[in-house]
Amino acid sequence: MRKSFLAILVLLLALPLVADEGMWLFNRTPNAIFKQRYGFEPTKAWLDHLQKSSIRFNSGGSGSFVSADGLALTNHHVGLDCLAKISTKDHDYVTTGYYAKTQADEVKCVDLELNVLQSIEDVTAKVNAAVTPGMTTAAAQAARRGVMSTIEQESVKATGLRSDVVTLFQGGEYHLYRYKVYTDVRLVFAPEVAIAFFGGDPDNFEYPRYDLDVCFFRAYENGKPVHPADYLKWSETGAKDGDLVFVSGHPGSTSRLNTMSHLQFYRDVAYPFTLNLLRRREVLLTNYAQRSLENDRRAHDDLFGVKNSRKAYLGRIAGLQDPAVLQAKAASETALRQKVTSDAQLNSAYGEAWQNVDAAINTYRPIYVDYRFVEGGIAFNSHLFQTARTLLRLGDESTKPNGERLREYRESNLPSLKQGLYSEAPIYDDLEIVTLADSLSNWLEVAPADPLVQQVLAGKSPQERAAELVHGTKLKDVAVRKALGEGGKAAVDASNDPMIQVARMVDAHARELRTQYDNNIAEPLRQSYAKIANAQFKTSGGDTYPDATFTLRLSFGTVKGFTENGANVPWATEIGGTFEHAAEHGNEGEFKLPPSWTAKKAILDNDKTPYDFVMTADIIGGNSGSPVVNRNNEFVGIIFDGNIQSLPWDYQFDERQGRAVAVHSAGILDALKKVYSVPGLVKELTGK
Amino acid sequence: MRKSFLAILVLLLALPLVADEGMWLFNRTPNAIFKQRYGFEPTKAWLDHLQKSSIRFNSGGSGSFVSADGLALTNHHVGLDCLAKISTKDHDYVTTGYYAKTQADEVKCVDLELNVLQSIEDVTAKVNAAVTPGMTTAAAQAARRGVMSTIEQESVKATGLRSDVVTLFQGGEYHLYRYKVYTDVRLVFAPEVAIAFFGGDPDNFEYPRYDLDVCFFRAYENGKPVHPADYLKWSETGAKDGDLVFVSGHPGSTSRLNTMSHLQFYRDVAYPFTLNLLRRREVLLTNYAQRSLENDRRAHDDLFGVKNSRKAYLGRIAGLQDPAVLQAKAASETALRQKVTSDAQLNSAYGEAWQNVDAAINTYRPIYVDYRFVEGGIAFNSHLFQTARTLLRLGDESTKPNGERLREYRESNLPSLKQGLYSEAPIYDDLEIVTLADSLSNWLEVAPADPLVQQVLAGKSPQERAAELVHGTKLKDVAVRKALGEGGKAAVDASNDPMIQVARMVDAHARELRTQYDNNIAEPLRQSYAKIANAQFKTSGGDTYPDATFTLRLSFGTVKGFTENGANVPWATEIGGTFEHAAEHGNEGEFKLPPSWTAKKAILDNDKTPYDFVMTADIIGGNSGSPVVNRNNEFVGIIFDGNIQSLPWDYQFDERQGRAVAVHSAGILDALKKVYSVPGLVKELTGK
Repeated sequence: MRKSFLAILVLLLALPLVADEGMWLFNRTPNAIFKQRYGFEPTKAWLDHLQKSSIRFNSGGSGSFVSADGLALTNHHVGLDCLAKISTKDHDYVTTGYYAKTQADEVKCVDLELNVLQSIEDVTAKVNAAVTPGMTTAAAQAARRGVMSTIEQESVKATGLRSDVVTLFQGGEYHLYRYKVYTDVRLVFAPEVAIAFFGGDPDNFEYPRYDLDVCFFRAYENGKPVHPADYLKWSETGAKDGDLVFVSGHPGSTSRLNTMSHLQFYRDVAYPFTLNLLRRREVLLTNYAQRSLENDRRAHDDLFGVKNSRKAYLGRIAGLQDPAVLQAKAASETALRQKVTSDAQLNSAYGEAWQNVDAAINTYRPIYVDYRFVEGGIAFNSHLFQTARTLLRLGDESTKPNGERLREYRESNLPSLKQGLYSEAPIYDDLEIVTLADSLSNWLEVAPADPLVQQVLAGKSPQERAAELVHGTKLKDVAVRKALGEGGKAAVDASNDPMIQVARMVDAHARELRTQYDNNIAEPLRQSYAKIANAQFKTSGGDTYPDATFTLRLSFGTVKGFTENGANVPWATEIGGTFEHAAEHGNEGEFKLPPSWTAKKAILDNDKTPYDFVMTADIIGGNSGSPVVNRNNEFVGIIFDGNIQSLPWDYQFDERQGRAVAVHSAGILDALKKVYSVPGLVKELTGK
Repeated sequence: MRKSFLAILVLLLALPLVADEGMWLFNRTPNAIFKQRYGFEPTKAWLDHLQKSSIRFNSGGSGSFVSADGLALTNHHVGLDCLAKISTKDHDYVTTGYYAKTQADEVKCVDLELNVLQSIEDVTAKVNAAVTPGMTTAAAQAARRGVMSTIEQESVKATGLRSDVVTLFQGGEYHLYRYKVYTDVRLVFAPEVAIAFFGGDPDNFEYPRYDLDVCFFRAYENGKPVHPADYLKWSETGAKDGDLVFVSGHPGSTSRLNTMSHLQFYRDVAYPFTLNLLRRREVLLTNYAQRSLENDRRAHDDLFGVKNSRKAYLGRIAGLQDPAVLQAKAASETALRQKVTSDAQLNSAYGEAWQNVDAAINTYRPIYVDYRFVEGGIAFNSHLFQTARTLLRLGDESTKPNGERLREYRESNLPSLKQGLYSEAPIYDDLEIVTLADSLSNWLEVAPADPLVQQVLAGKSPQERAAELVHGTKLKDVAVRKALGEGGKAAVDASNDPMIQVARMVDAHARELRTQYDNNIAEPLRQSYAKIANAQFKTSGGDTYPDATFTLRLSFGTVKGFTENGANVPWATEIGGTFEHAAEHGNEGEFKLPPSWTAKKAILDNDKTPYDFVMTADIIGGNSGSPVVNRNNEFVGIIFDGNIQSLPWDYQFDERQGRAVAVHSAGILDALKKVYSVPGLVKELTGK
């Protein structure tokens, strides 16, 4: 939406006349807005360069090429997944950090996949043509899934590129995204987690911040570093207060098009459920982690993820529990619906959409818990179980025509799927037992009388059964996984691995739930939201952007501070402030600086170099690691967080206090030079 | 139960022929068992001495007099409530510990009340006489409440002692307990929390342990130390492996008489609900605490309590989710019910009891969440709200005859109630807002459409409303509380304090729920369990003990280790082992020893003095701080925990692995001498 109705309403209430809103499609950038508001006109080349310099980290984040030799920069907390997987008890890359002095020292990640977007093609017409009027939602769902798989597989054949049909506007449009894929990715530089995530959970989603949340990788092909045609030039001065900046990254998901009833479902059902689950896992993993330093290392990455999500969801539910927020949303929905009902043609085309959303949600409610536990896998919080299920379904789905498979098993997705399935990432039996036992126990709590639960537990306690399954399965062995994965259905059917037996035991019911969800909930929602999106286009006119889909988007904004509790929060922090921030928290726990920093306190203490900074650009989870560029397309910073006021951006952008938070390009250089003394890396970035 | 059917069944399966089971009434000790099993016959004087040396800490634990000058020993984690309340930002008794060199240095607790049991009188006949056949449960409830209040108030008038009618066997018997009360209690010695609770949450409910979980207070009367006629002589050698020992303390509550359906209700409804709540508070308070050292101090006591409960409940639900445990319980219930149905007289007297329990639980289910949120106060997690509600109800209840009041407002209980209500304990606005906002948010989650929630929130978000209420109320001021509390109903009715307004807003509905609970759930349960208890007496014969009720009980057992995962866990740890245990955990976090201990490492490292030890005595939460005595009634240790295998003792005692955990009397002396160098305290304990 150029300006959504919601935004318009909020504008009327309190916002400045314009808002830096929007996660824009690269094939539909709001050039008129850029020009009108900032006097800036990006050329096609400018956009292409930024697009092809931008990277999707499939572990769940964003990044960019920042050197001619394939140096890929992202956040430390995005790189963490790789860092944890290459660490051992004796070499913990997370705690100690790492620098590869030579390319020979660069450490290969076990299963990281990078995607670089090459092209976008609008295939809405082709997809919609497969769905004919009068089809049942089940038939429509199947037809749509079929045509999407076919388009993707044809594109893979034609171009050799990863090809994904992306559903935009919740079903309003379908675009084909083609990516160059890198699977040989090596660690070049990571600071210690103590400075990358300085302030820990207490400081997460807060500002001011003092975090060096960066991590450098290098992409390889055929055993050699890649030389990307497009990479971002590093600005040594970086962003300044008041600058226009752009953020190019992969926001994961937003809910801005969602109806009131859908948001209320989140508020009253989905978010409380998810928060209870996250809190449960946080307590469980914290307990496990505190038992020993090695446990702490093993659980670190999972625990970070859980706490991060918990804080994000808390911010979202707080917004939805604020009557002021919901009233604004309700008013904008009422306004749109009135426009639709007052126009016979619009009304006949889109009028029923809202009731249809309600109906789909009402279909979801009674199966919500069962769906999330059994098909969503909450009942089986175990890497080994997930592997078992993937192998089982890979066997079954592979026997079907490409268009009829569950979407994640479509031919074009198998390389990515197998990258994870055959990963050499370590699996820890003790942690697997702890998480599986707790999730089985949770399932027993929510469905004590369910015969399926009893069948899975096989007369044992959750603890006992989890230990038996984890000790009994052979799926930790990658060779066993490969034999089953490549052996097809026959091999999997013949397996008596206990974890595969459990996956098999629940699969009929899980698939039944999946079918119900896909046909009776997801499909009607897709059809309804397509109508609502179209109603918005038709009644508001102008440019617009779809909800986030973990695909490349362009955001823009101004570097500037904000006001909180009557006080000004400046646009940037300074390197030297880190020590003061640590001291204010007793230099303990999450505020204990690593030795590399305390050793350099004398020379850093008065260092005024900008360190972390804020801007009004519209971001959300998944944007972590996104490059921030200036008008000259130079790298001036890297997004790593949003402040607490930005959390409701999930359903409503608001730049009064909400800000994206980034590490400053000058601050990064300063730390690399003064703390880490890595001239090779500095030279690769700056040429100096 | 001398041996409950459950115990008998378990015996048949796996236990040794006899079990050290039972939390025995002091007026009904199992002397035959003591004699037969251990050749020990306690005299009336022996029992009287132990009873009158034992102390109830009304903040939630046990203790004992250990000197002629009123020295009262309990656990550090029982004393913690007082330590936290007398601490300030600048003097944190919890972190630094304390030793009062002279009596003048002893620090008065702000609201601690100690009770010492003087006598027990069986008043079952009197109470039952008030309830006549044919009464509705509501009438029975009222009649019973009335006669209990009258008995208590008459006893107070006659003796001047605190007088409580205690409901035993869930309604099978009623005994009048008379206590001497001490309200001037002063801190003498506390070690640092880092050694008192060494190992923290990870080690809690675990064994082996290395904790100095002790805290010495002194009871005063009229500004002078009391000189109790009974106090325990300190054994310098303490308990030895194989010793018969006794534990005299106040177990809080158990569920051993509970029916299968009642335990299933716990497993499927009450425990999951409570655990979700505890995890929610744990995450909330941990977050708050991590923000600053001062926050950490403020939340310490609450956070300890929440984590402690969470771990206890996890152990309980794990037991109930173990089919082996429930099958044993089911078999014993079936056996009892068969005996009852096969005897016409028993059947007519008791046969309906089990269905009546089911019916009461089915009445509870639909109001369970509402009851716990609104009457149980989960919706208002705030000291200030609880104060407001107490003031409001104190005003209303005081206008009624004593026998018709809500039980906590009966005349005989008012001194204790006011001890808390007028406490000078600090209240922290920021923490109050955090907990109240979260609990209001939780209420809104479970009852989004409830008009009462909307009325309380008054069109604001939970966060905004909580801040408004906490900042607006005047109830932090003890003088304001006293004026309202002593001003009676008229004063409270005239108050427009916003927190009292909220308490008033919800009071009609809260009372409605309370009435429903008291009349239609608690009373039928009481009547049914009285029958089930009687059926057990009649069919099993012999001595028996009631479920725990936070009143004085005598347990017994043998000092001995146990086997875990095939390895022997010895009966005691040694002082010197503390340093090894710390080192195994990197000397960090919960395993970081305080400076007083690290300074003495050289002389303590090889110290073989027994430190913590285990025994088979039957205990549960509330027994914390209970003295452990030998045959000579000498103090040989102090209970501070049970191991993880003891957690299912809530509903089933099992001594195969379950153990009570205590600090050893010799270990305490050793630490007082070598680490803390407090010769005055040592001399008071030992005369040397």
